[in-house]
Amino acid sequence: MTRTTNAVGNETRRRLIAGGLTEFHARGFHGTGVDAIARTASVPKGSFYNHFESKQTFCAEIVDAYFERHRGKLDLFFNDRSLAPLDRLRAYLDERIEYFTRVELKRGCLMGNLSLELADHEEAVRSRLKDRFDEWAGIFADCIESAQSAGQVSSAFRPSELAGFILNSWEGAILRMRVERTVKPLEIARDFILQSLLR
Amino acid sequence: MTRTTNAVGNETRRRLIAGGLTEFHARGFHGTGVDAIARTASVPKGSFYNHFESKQTFCAEIVDAYFERHRGKLDLFFNDRSLAPLDRLRAYLDERIEYFTRVELKRGCLMGNLSLELADHEEAVRSRLKDRFDEWAGIFADCIESAQSAGQVSSAFRPSELAGFILNSWEGAILRMRVERTVKPLEIARDFILQSLLR
Repeated sequence: MTRTTNAVGNETRRRLIAGGLTEFHARGFHGTGVDAIARTASVPKGSFYNHFESKQTFCAEIVDAYFERHRGKLDLFFNDRSLAPLDRLRAYLDERIEYFTRVELKRGCLMGNLSLELADHEEAVRSRLKDRFDEWAGIFADCIESAQSAGQVSSAFRPSELAGFILNSWEGAILRMRVERTVKPLEIARDFILQSLLR
Repeated sequence: MTRTTNAVGNETRRRLIAGGLTEFHARGFHGTGVDAIARTASVPKGSFYNHFESKQTFCAEIVDAYFERHRGKLDLFFNDRSLAPLDRLRAYLDERIEYFTRVELKRGCLMGNLSLELADHEEAVRSRLKDRFDEWAGIFADCIESAQSAGQVSSAFRPSELAGFILNSWEGAILRMRVERTVKPLEIARDFILQSLLR
């Protein structure tokens, strides 16, 4: 809930969201204090509660902000009509592999991290994660449906189920990448997704 | 590191490990204090540091204790020579789906949870998780190799890569189960694993 709505307030709010994205991604929800978020945002700690009711409601907005940014990336690839449907997915997965290599295989997917940390205890965060994961899977499902229409992929499976499985497998590959400290789980996931599941 | 090795000490240690398993699984590493672990274990808080150097080294032992318990379950299915190789995997996945349904889709896999929470920051925990995940994937890989020898599964893919992808996909399905609050991601994962990946 926004409690301060003037221009200065909006800028403070924007900085707190940016700080929260950085801090939650690096250290998780419980590993991050409101004071660290305020420090990263370069705003006084007290102003946090002028803008957000609690760390929990703040976190739900962080989920939206994270997916909003990621959605820009998804659109870039999945709206590219110059590529055949499966090549859009391939280009997206390749870009993700490059990205995770660039950041030294760290931090992973903030949505995945918050899912395992908070799904049982923070209903507002869980339901926001659910909505954003559903939206993300929907983008994959549309791509698979196009690939089926174009004859690139067999129509034996329902796009929504295939898309859900692929997205979840990708999240699992990111999890394992962080434990193994190699990019291999992502490369193997990409290859099974494109060569075995989508055929 | 065990600092107290007499019988009473061993019992205290055993209770702390059991308490740690319960608490870390329910609330995560950062969400759990040493005092809560001692309380659940019904031992004085001070005795924790008689047995463990730190919460971090304790957590590495919790990873082993968790996998040890889970390994009992894996052995039950994967050593069952009365079943064809793929039916061992199917029986294991079915049991997991029943288990997660029974616990109301909560808590998930402790190894997965600790991976996303700690892999970047706690090297001792990360390397223990890596070893246990590798062991777990090895059990899947042996099963797939047997299924290939028995002609149940095509030999087009390497058992180790297939096993890794399947384990990671399963972890990802557990993640999504907790966000969606339905068992469907696990059922869909089981079906794709058995009908599409292993064919």
